[in-house]
Amino acid sequence: MVQAVEIEGDRICITLAFPFPEGPIQEKVAQFVQQAVEKVSNGVAVEVGATEMNTKQRAAFLALAKDMQPISGGHIGMVLAVMSGKGGVGKSTVTGLLATELRRRGFRVGVIDADITGPSIPKIFGVHQAPIAGPRGILPVKSRTGIELMSMNLLLPVEDRPVVWRGPLISRAIEQFWGEIAWGDLDFLIVDLPPGTSDAALTVTQSLPLDGIVLVTSPQDLAGMVVRKAAIMAQHLRVPLIGLVENMSHIVCPECGTRINLFGASRAEVTAGAMGTTLIGRIPIDTHLSILCDSGAIEEYRANEFKEITETIIRSLDIKAREPAVGASLPLS
Amino acid sequence: MVQAVEIEGDRICITLAFPFPEGPIQEKVAQFVQQAVEKVSNGVAVEVGATEMNTKQRAAFLALAKDMQPISGGHIGMVLAVMSGKGGVGKSTVTGLLATELRRRGFRVGVIDADITGPSIPKIFGVHQAPIAGPRGILPVKSRTGIELMSMNLLLPVEDRPVVWRGPLISRAIEQFWGEIAWGDLDFLIVDLPPGTSDAALTVTQSLPLDGIVLVTSPQDLAGMVVRKAAIMAQHLRVPLIGLVENMSHIVCPECGTRINLFGASRAEVTAGAMGTTLIGRIPIDTHLSILCDSGAIEEYRANEFKEITETIIRSLDIKAREPAVGASLPLS
Repeated sequence: MVQAVEIEGDRICITLAFPFPEGPIQEKVAQFVQQAVEKVSNGVAVEVGATEMNTKQRAAFLALAKDMQPISGGHIGMVLAVMSGKGGVGKSTVTGLLATELRRRGFRVGVIDADITGPSIPKIFGVHQAPIAGPRGILPVKSRTGIELMSMNLLLPVEDRPVVWRGPLISRAIEQFWGEIAWGDLDFLIVDLPPGTSDAALTVTQSLPLDGIVLVTSPQDLAGMVVRKAAIMAQHLRVPLIGLVENMSHIVCPECGTRINLFGASRAEVTAGAMGTTLIGRIPIDTHLSILCDSGAIEEYRANEFKEITETIIRSLDIKAREPAVGASLPLS
Repeated sequence: MVQAVEIEGDRICITLAFPFPEGPIQEKVAQFVQQAVEKVSNGVAVEVGATEMNTKQRAAFLALAKDMQPISGGHIGMVLAVMSGKGGVGKSTVTGLLATELRRRGFRVGVIDADITGPSIPKIFGVHQAPIAGPRGILPVKSRTGIELMSMNLLLPVEDRPVVWRGPLISRAIEQFWGEIAWGDLDFLIVDLPPGTSDAALTVTQSLPLDGIVLVTSPQDLAGMVVRKAAIMAQHLRVPLIGLVENMSHIVCPECGTRINLFGASRAEVTAGAMGTTLIGRIPIDTHLSILCDSGAIEEYRANEFKEITETIIRSLDIKAREPAVGASLPLS
């Protein structure tokens, strides 16, 4: 990142190159470098300027950044984001089920709820205690099966208190959830994104070393259109798409067993194809799952559909090829 | 808004009071005042400072602002926002159906799609032509039944192109949709909000002279919690709540006629009560409506549930008591 170091008169001028024109941590990094150099400059003034990387530099930087770890130590194996662009298609449910299935396989799993203004994660996991501070940062809150969680709603005194923040504060909160939480060693950290392609999505895709994105859609063409926007954004920012999950694909009538396509016929395969990715699986609407989510017991839910989706995601990440985290995970079942 | 005018040495110092600490148009207003005074100050320097109104001043200012009209002229009768906090509960569907029902009653209706990153309005109305410029500003695009529409997606060359903008640009776009579109005379302007209580919601509730908010929720307790956040935000900003619409309340099996409560039992009445507002109505999931929305024909949909909701909203706004807009609307059916 150090582009140039020059002596101009009695000043030391350092130019840093950043990967994106307006990354939210630029100022912090520049300050840090300035203070570090001032410590050894014997009173000579230090100035730090910023420039943008070219495409080649950025690619090299991002490759390096993949191994970047949070300030608070610990090793995080894979960082996945669950994204949609569209709201209410089940990002949090998919995040919760994926975390649960991975945990069942013995992995150490964490979840960042990046939906700062509409957080669902604490409610579906039934976790309500406030996080406490540990020696290396704030400790995430453990779910019943041991999934580590961090969400804005864990920090609010009342769960329906609104967080009326403009973008910069939203971004800052997400960065802190990444960098200032003592995650410890994790095999998977899953980031549950809010709808939209604005501040939260930008911050997560630009500032976090994502290994891949799981897209979630519903059968409506309307949802598909908005999900394509999110996919195109991810591709622009060079984050690999793992695949598409279609939620709410149908419901089975509890009386007569008829399969009802609630939102018309599924278009998920076409949507996935248009985005250059694959359909990982379909999840039906299951009233039982809704009730478990509302009562904070998502970890009790078992469904073959999601087991298969999880296994497909694990395979596509080629987990076995990666070095296992310290205190290694159990083998895949 | 003019708090003080002082002469300090050879400068004229003007202090303006703004209703909110960080309204997005403050700088513009200050600049405008500075330039206007400079024109008549005979070369004397003019400085414009800003301060915040106290509660009393703000209430008086907001009462005045209710009569504020867009720059582009025309008279707008009622400005309503459809809000939820939660995504995917059907804000755009409710917006579209409300606009359609009002139009059927002869009202002149406009819709601002304030969901800049995930706009649905053009798709559900089947409107795809780009807006053109008129003598007083950009003209909204007319739907088949004559509803005036403005949406980010009408301005994009391809509908699935993502709009990857941080908050300030999102807010600016919404302000332009209000102030720089030649809406002409309207009885109702309905603003379809995106999920969340961040930039878009803040800009709409702070910068637009809203007459009321229609809240939309789904039967899930999870949705209810996030909708309560939005309601509390609206109450903090002193925008009246018209009531709550519960969407996706159930589905009727097309084979055996069983009424299936998809997301468990409805909690809408409790949710409405907790927010100090009333439940206006419930809408079932109707596959036919989904298909009409996907094919851009929402205006063809007719359902008694929504007719009643519209009439309740009209009654609660006490329309008859208001002066009719120029070229008056047809009487209520």
